[in-house]
Amino acid sequence: MFKVKVFVTLKEGVLDPQGKAIQQSLASLSYDEVEEVRVGKYIELMVEQREELEKRINEMCDQLLANPVIEDYYYEIEEAVR
Amino acid sequence: MFKVKVFVTLKEGVLDPQGKAIQQSLASLSYDEVEEVRVGKYIELMVEQREELEKRINEMCDQLLANPVIEDYYYEIEEAVR
Repeated sequence: MFKVKVFVTLKEGVLDPQGKAIQQSLASLSYDEVEEVRVGKYIELMVEQREELEKRINEMCDQLLANPVIEDYYYEIEEAVR
Repeated sequence: MFKVKVFVTLKEGVLDPQGKAIQQSLASLSYDEVEEVRVGKYIELMVEQREELEKRINEMCDQLLANPVIEDYYYEIEEAVR
């Protein structure tokens, strides 16, 4: 069993209204040292051992977990402790 | 300038309907090796150098970025390349 950690982020240059809203809220809470906020998804998958694991993970990301038009992704694979 | 990577995840035992929906979609796309999916937030903060940086990051997470009732968080701090 593997734990796959997928990080999905907005591509450079894509506007991030959610990030902007968080930054303004932080500033209103006096955390004005925060210059920029970018919000993405962190997805953990528990995956059984399978042939071509990385190829299938890329397919899952391309088809479902990330929107290739506006998002980038990267992932880390680790042995899962059950 | 620092880049702070914040990972917000649902606490163990908290139901994750979004994760369940993704898992079912992956299974319908024939990725049935995925046994479990947990969805969280990945937030990148660009932060100016400040006294008590870690203390202030914890405060930001406790007050705004994570819901302490149902979510856990951890973060990584790295020098930002501008």
